[in-house]
This record gives sequence, structure tokens and C-alpha cells, in this order.
Amino acid sequence: MSANARILCPTLKQRLMTAEKAAELIPAGANVGMSGFTGAGYPKVVPGALAERIRKLNAREGSEPFRINVWTGASTAPELDGVLAEVDGIEMRLPFQSDPICRQRINNGTMDYVDLHLSEVSQYAWSGFLGKMDIALIEVAGIREDGSLIPSSSIGNNKTWIEQADKIILEVNSKQNIKLEGMHDVYYGTALPPDRKPIMLTDPADRIGEFYFECPPEKVIAVVESDAADRNSPFKASDETSQKIAQHILDFFEREIELGRLPKELLPIQSGVGNIPNAVLEGLDAGPFKNLTAFTEVIQDGMLKMLKSGTLSVASATAFSLSPEGIKEFDENIDLYRDKIILRQQDISNHPELARRLGIIAMNGMIECDIYGNVNSTHIMGTRMMNGIGGSGDFARNGYLSIFVSPSIAKDGAISSIVPMVSHVDHTEHDVKVIVTEQGLADLRGLSPRQRAREIINHCAHPDFRPALHDYFERALHSGRGMHTPHLLGEALSWHQRYEEEGQM
Amino acid sequence: MSANARILCPTLKQRLMTAEKAAELIPAGANVGMSGFTGAGYPKVVPGALAERIRKLNAREGSEPFRINVWTGASTAPELDGVLAEVDGIEMRLPFQSDPICRQRINNGTMDYVDLHLSEVSQYAWSGFLGKMDIALIEVAGIREDGSLIPSSSIGNNKTWIEQADKIILEVNSKQNIKLEGMHDVYYGTALPPDRKPIMLTDPADRIGEFYFECPPEKVIAVVESDAADRNSPFKASDETSQKIAQHILDFFEREIELGRLPKELLPIQSGVGNIPNAVLEGLDAGPFKNLTAFTEVIQDGMLKMLKSGTLSVASATAFSLSPEGIKEFDENIDLYRDKIILRQQDISNHPELARRLGIIAMNGMIECDIYGNVNSTHIMGTRMMNGIGGSGDFARNGYLSIFVSPSIAKDGAISSIVPMVSHVDHTEHDVKVIVTEQGLADLRGLSPRQRAREIINHCAHPDFRPALHDYFERALHSGRGMHTPHLLGEALSWHQRYEEEGQM
Repeated sequence: MSANARILCPTLKQRLMTAEKAAELIPAGANVGMSGFTGAGYPKVVPGALAERIRKLNAREGSEPFRINVWTGASTAPELDGVLAEVDGIEMRLPFQSDPICRQRINNGTMDYVDLHLSEVSQYAWSGFLGKMDIALIEVAGIREDGSLIPSSSIGNNKTWIEQADKIILEVNSKQNIKLEGMHDVYYGTALPPDRKPIMLTDPADRIGEFYFECPPEKVIAVVESDAADRNSPFKASDETSQKIAQHILDFFEREIELGRLPKELLPIQSGVGNIPNAVLEGLDAGPFKNLTAFTEVIQDGMLKMLKSGTLSVASATAFSLSPEGIKEFDENIDLYRDKIILRQQDISNHPELARRLGIIAMNGMIECDIYGNVNSTHIMGTRMMNGIGGSGDFARNGYLSIFVSPSIAKDGAISSIVPMVSHVDHTEHDVKVIVTEQGLADLRGLSPRQRAREIINHCAHPDFRPALHDYFERALHSGRGMHTPHLLGEALSWHQRYEEEGQM
Repeated sequence: MSANARILCPTLKQRLMTAEKAAELIPAGANVGMSGFTGAGYPKVVPGALAERIRKLNAREGSEPFRINVWTGASTAPELDGVLAEVDGIEMRLPFQSDPICRQRINNGTMDYVDLHLSEVSQYAWSGFLGKMDIALIEVAGIREDGSLIPSSSIGNNKTWIEQADKIILEVNSKQNIKLEGMHDVYYGTALPPDRKPIMLTDPADRIGEFYFECPPEKVIAVVESDAADRNSPFKASDETSQKIAQHILDFFEREIELGRLPKELLPIQSGVGNIPNAVLEGLDAGPFKNLTAFTEVIQDGMLKMLKSGTLSVASATAFSLSPEGIKEFDENIDLYRDKIILRQQDISNHPELARRLGIIAMNGMIECDIYGNVNSTHIMGTRMMNGIGGSGDFARNGYLSIFVSPSIAKDGAISSIVPMVSHVDHTEHDVKVIVTEQGLADLRGLSPRQRAREIINHCAHPDFRPALHDYFERALHSGRGMHTPHLLGEALSWHQRYEEEGQM
């Protein structure tokens, strides 16, 4: 079915134009809300046309630089972040990103990046903290006769962008499976305080909203056709390190069930994106678990398998993030998955109220943690942005269990993921309950900082770095300074400094 | 009315005994849940008797040290934390504390301290993360005929302790105003996931619970009479620095109202305890505001004044923290205050769901913040515990606005509250929206780290430290390292190190 055939609203059909024409409607300095979350459902042709326009404009002698501010759901893809960053077309970007060219600009100081909790972005926009949104650029799977929109492979902040923007540009992508229709749950009960009401969701399977986005046709200034696949990064088979980490987590779950601290169906799981989370999902699928639920941001390949096998009864998320094989599996068996997957806007998928009520088990990757349990999820050596905090803070703070995972070493052993003091803090000692590396698992619940240090060094640090960590801790303990959180201030960040100077911690 | 006359349940009257006898019922190694929150409603006689017993036992040659684990609501007073810490009777304590002897033991390594978010303590206890609670020691204002309990001047975690403990010791304090009866709202709708339901509270004035604690009489092993006042720290009149900070906040509120980003009744305010928050309350009371509401932890003197003047229509909290004059005012006009004050358990007063829904304006003190907006609320020079995180994290993360305040300098100018890198992080850059010192206010919403640095240095740092902060930032910016969050790792903590070594940052 062509994109054209998916535009059923006569008024909006009249606004069909080329990507180039649509890109001309975006003025310099605009705040643009774009669809897209972890490489799914982002606009695929207008950003490229805009980048080309910017490139030409900026090449003119004496011209003012043409830049826009880009607000998204989370990371997108080269066709959006990449092309715009390439031409230096982004003044400020928020929130989570993972594009290499974007990252380079953020870290060389030519792009401002605002790293917000994903659950808070729409509140920031609604309350005017970020200024006025000028234009929303949203990919949809179709436009219905009444002008309402069939969401695409992610929802992210689209509901908010459509409501907040003065003007809307729609990309209708015929590559998106039309059977996505009916899988979404767009909640229209949000409000700003003091008018907020309880969100009446008590189970990941609950539906509390609509299938479609409401969209006033008069705000739509352009409709553009596209026919391109989502980013669909290839799936990497899990390696031995990931499998070991997964096994530690599975053992932990089994012990918690034995102790009566987790039900045998666990609690709704949230899983970050990547190799290790996928290995954990694989492990859960191979294990004794049945009828688990997921209340998470992203549906990965591993979750499709679990839904098919019955390990998982339902998965609630805000986006897909599938490999090409995952997409194939999904498309071929969409009728099976339709009943078991619900896509929500990210202010609901990551909502503090729901994370707390449902009792999320949050599993997220980290860059490093220190011996006292503070976690760095975002910064390389304290200064360089990797991707962003994403939803990890939403789930770790308000969920039931927060588990942070990483291999114990990086760069062939030049870097220890366990350090005396993290070079940046995204999750404080108050929010981190469990640390896991391939070496083992540190259960920090109810421990004082000194107790945590021994637990983390002994169970999580790589043996090559363990003696140096013990040595740091013991010397700090006997330094005559405070012994609540013993530190040697002159050495606390020396591991990172050494790596910067000598290439080895 | 004597304490005896307040014990109306015949069964429980039979369990009356001295504090000494009751203290003998607490075994070594016990996990003891004690009432008490910011110096209100803590048990006043049994802890002293227990301390005396511990002193004698520990003086015996060859005896095993007698210690207990103390779980409270928040800080108590010398009669509890002080006497038990004095005799080295506390193995582990949680959460927030402010006792000087306790603090000394925490920092010299002879007491373990677990610093949890106040909203999470009861969840930790319920889910078994802390082990089994053996005994609850709870101050009440009276015992009703059916054995239910009239709560005292704080609720804190008492509902949870009474439910969780195998055995309960009650202190009936005749000094507590008996008219407290009916001011409490004890919510019995809590559950562990997956059985949690929405908390149907949409306004700080809403009542969703009971006046009394349910308490199975068979669990009560002792009832003890007491007749002693709460800690009631003297109220210090606000100084010029506090008044300046308050004025910056008031100006900010007025601007936000003008911009349509806050309603003219603001949103429910949460205010930390102390000099500066009291000055802000005074300022609000003197200003144009009417019908404000408070959804906070603690009712301070300033809030009584605001309730009386009509600036505040209702105050919801979990405890009082009044000066002797405040108590006098409260007792003399209790009929006026009864209708306007609601005391709740701390898992409700600080609940993420409610902080988010109501849109709390969170105002809390800090020890220091760095140029990128990370806040340290707990650690002196990175190693020594001051008090603890308290509820600041609950409100700052999930509320609508998080405001952190401090004078720009401490120790007569030897310490700058604005530093290149904080020596400990309790509130990350993602959670801090506004920083205020007497120098000015930095509005960090929607700013990248580099933009935040200029905002904080220019508006909040003391002029004596401003050049050195600019110098650090500029050199970091040109260091050739990452420019997202520019740092010089070898110098980032040098200000703290210099203070430790030379007594001056």
C-alpha cells in the first residue's frame, strides 16, 4: 500500500508535497519537535531535505548560520540526527541521542545538549520551560478520514509535540506495517498541576487511552510521503561476558523468589537496549519463568522471542528497536504480537507514578560505578557525553529494584568499570540497589558505604583491579578524614586522569 | 491529663510498666523501629533506659558488645539517638539523622549509617530488604478503648513499624496535646507490587485514611508512660543572607506567574527545615500570596503563621518541628490549626506518585553545588556525613520545580558553596532546576552544562570565588578534553583538598 493510499483525510491530502517543499516551511531558529525513539518512527525524508537546504544556505557568503533546536523522544538515526549535525544545523538537542556525528559536536562544543529524564520531557514542554514549540515533524503509519493519525513504530513524545506545536508536518511512511493500527494506547488524561488526576493503570496490560493521535487538520502545513525502513540495527549474538552477567541476574532473581521478596512471575521488567540486556532476556526465556510482564521503553528482539514462547505475557513500551531479522519476525507474525504489545507515550511508559506502583525491576547498562555505588551512565572520563541518561533514572529511582550492569573492564583491560570515584554521577548511592559485572553481583540494599565498598570490590571488580581498589579503600579508611564515605581527594579521580594521560587506568 | 488516663484499652493498661522494665524486653542485635521525625514524636524514656542498660552490660568484662539497629522516620533527639550513640549502642542506623554524637560515630567509623530516600524506607522494610523488624517502639498521644492508637506529633514510619514488628512497645506521652486526635490521616491502602492501587489524593487537603493506627493488642509487650516535650529547637530569626535568598525566590515565583508557568496560588510547596526555608516562608507570608498549599514533610513555625494569616489554606506533612514559642502558639490555637493541618505517614507525604501529580515546588538546602548543577546535600568535603538526604530527593526528582538554596560561602568565607566539582552527588544535574544563594538565582531549566556553568558562576557564586571559578571553567573548556562537561580532572576536587590541608578553599 503506497503512502498516498494511507492518507484518507481529503483536507490533509491537499497538503501533500515534496520533502524539499516541506523543509522550506521550517524557519531558522525554530524549536522543532521530531518523532523518533531508539531508531524507530523518526521522520526519514524531511530532515535530509532540511539539511540540504541548510548546507546551501550556510555556504552563501556572509549568511547567518541556519540552525534549529531539535527535541525528540530519544535517539533517532543518521537520516535525522546525523544529516543535521553534519551540516551544523542543530543549535540545541534534547533528550537522549546516540548518533556519532551528534556526539562529536556535543563533545567539541559546537552543539548544546540537554540531557533530561525521558519521563520529564513532555512536562518540560507543557509547562513552557523550554520555550514555545514551533513545528512538529512526525512520522505516522497513516492518516484516517477524520484527520486522526495512526502512530508509527514509536510514540515517544509525539502526542505532546502534536499538541504543543503551532504547525505540524507529517511524514506518512508506507514501509511501516499498517497493522500497527490498534497497538497503540495514547493517553489523553494528562494535565498540568494542579489539575492532574491519578493514572488508572495497575497492570502492564491495561489500556487507558486511544488508538490514534488527535490532530487538528488546520495545524498541518505539510504532508510528505516516505517509504524507508527504521534504523533496525543488526542484532549481535550475546558473548560470554554478557551471558555471565545474565546468569548472575537470573541467580539473583531465583534467590529473591526463594526469600519471598519477589513473586514467581517477578515484577514488570524494564530492560535497557543492547547486548547485555538482550542476554538477560535470553536467559529469562531459557529459564523456568512463565507469564512475566514488561513495562519498559523499548521492545527488542529478545522480547519478541519471549512473547512467542509465553515467557512474557505482555510487553508495554514506547518504541520498537528491532534488528532486520526482528522486523521480519514481527511483520510475519504481527497478529500474534498485536495482542501482546502496547505502545504508549514516553511520559506514561516512564512515569514515576507507574514505575513506583507497578514495582518495576529496572535493568540498565552503565559506564562505570564507584566503590560506594554511585553510577555514571553518561560521561566518558567525566567530560565526554556518550549517549545520555535516557529512562534509566525514571526507572531506577522510582522502581522496586534498580540493577546496573557492565563488563568489569573495557578497552581490553585498560579501563576498570569499578573506580574509586565515578567521574560523573547519574544515579546516586541512594538509587542504586544492585551492581552486576561478569565477575559477580553486589547487593547493596541496606548497606552503609563502607559495607558497599567491600561488596562491590569483592564481587564486581575485575581481579586485575581488585588489589588497587582495596588499597585505595584501606588507605582512605586510615587517612584520618571522614570514615562515612572514605576518600582520598587527591587520588579519587586519578584513575581517569591516568587513562587520559597514559591510556591505562 | 496523665498518661495513665490516656490508656483506655483495659488489655493494654495491664501491660503498663517502667521504662527500665520495657528496655529489658529489647534484645541485643534487635532491629528496632522507632517513632520520630525531625525531633517530634520520638520515644522519650525507653531509649534512655535502654542506653543505661547497655552501658552497664558493656562495662562487664568479657561481655559481647550490646548493640541494636535503629530504624526511625527521620532525625530524633538527644534522648534517643544521643543516649544510644553515647554508649555505642547502635550498630546500624537509618534513615536521616542530625544528632551530633551519632554524626561523630558515623564519621569515625564506629556506626553504620544507611542514607535512604525517606519515601522508600517503608518499601524497604515491607519488601524485606532490611531483614525482619523485631520490635517497634512508638510514642503515641493515647490508646483508645479498642486498642487503636492516637498518633503523636509525627507519624513518620510508625504505621509500617507497627505492622512489621513482631512486638510493640508503646510510650504514651501526656505532654502531647490530646487535641492532636483527628489531625492525622493514616492511609491503609498501601500494598506491595503487583497489588498496588492508585492513591486517590489529588489535593493537599484530601483525606484518604484513618485518624488512628490499627494495632493488634497481642503484639504490645509493654506500655510506658512519659511526660516530656519534643525537642522543640529554638527558632532563630532570619538573617540578612536568608532574607536575600528568600527575596530571589519570591521574585522568581512572581516572574513564573507572569509568564504563565505557575498559577497565582503557586503549586503545593515543600520546604526543608531551617533558617533559610523559614525566611522564604516569612517572605511568602509578607507577599501578595493567598490560599497557597503545602505538601511537605514538616510543619515549622513559619507555616503556623501562614495558616493563621490565610496565606496558606492547608498544610500536609508528616511531622511538626516547632520552637518552644511555636508549640505555645499551636497549643493555644489548636482549634484553628486542627482544620488546616493533616499529618500523614512519610511514605505518603513524600510519595513519588503524589509529588509528581500535585506538582510540588521543592525547596531544600544544600551543602554545595558545582558549576554544572550537581548538588551535594549530605557530605562535608566528600567524606563526612552531615545529616542525610532526607526527603529532598523524593521531592526534587518527582516534583515540578526543584530549588536548592545555600549561602554562597561558609566558615567566614573559607568555603565556597559553588565549586568546580561537588565532592559528593545527591541530586544530579538531571534533577536540579534552580540554584539560589544570596548573590542571586540560576535558572537551569533547558540549559546545557556549559550554559549552566556561566549561569551559576555569574548569578550564585560569591564575588571572591567568581574569578577562580571562571578561570577553572575556561581552562577546562580549552583543555582539549570533552567539552560537554568540561573538567580538569587533576583539579576538580582541589578546592576541597586545599580546604582540608590549608583551611581555605
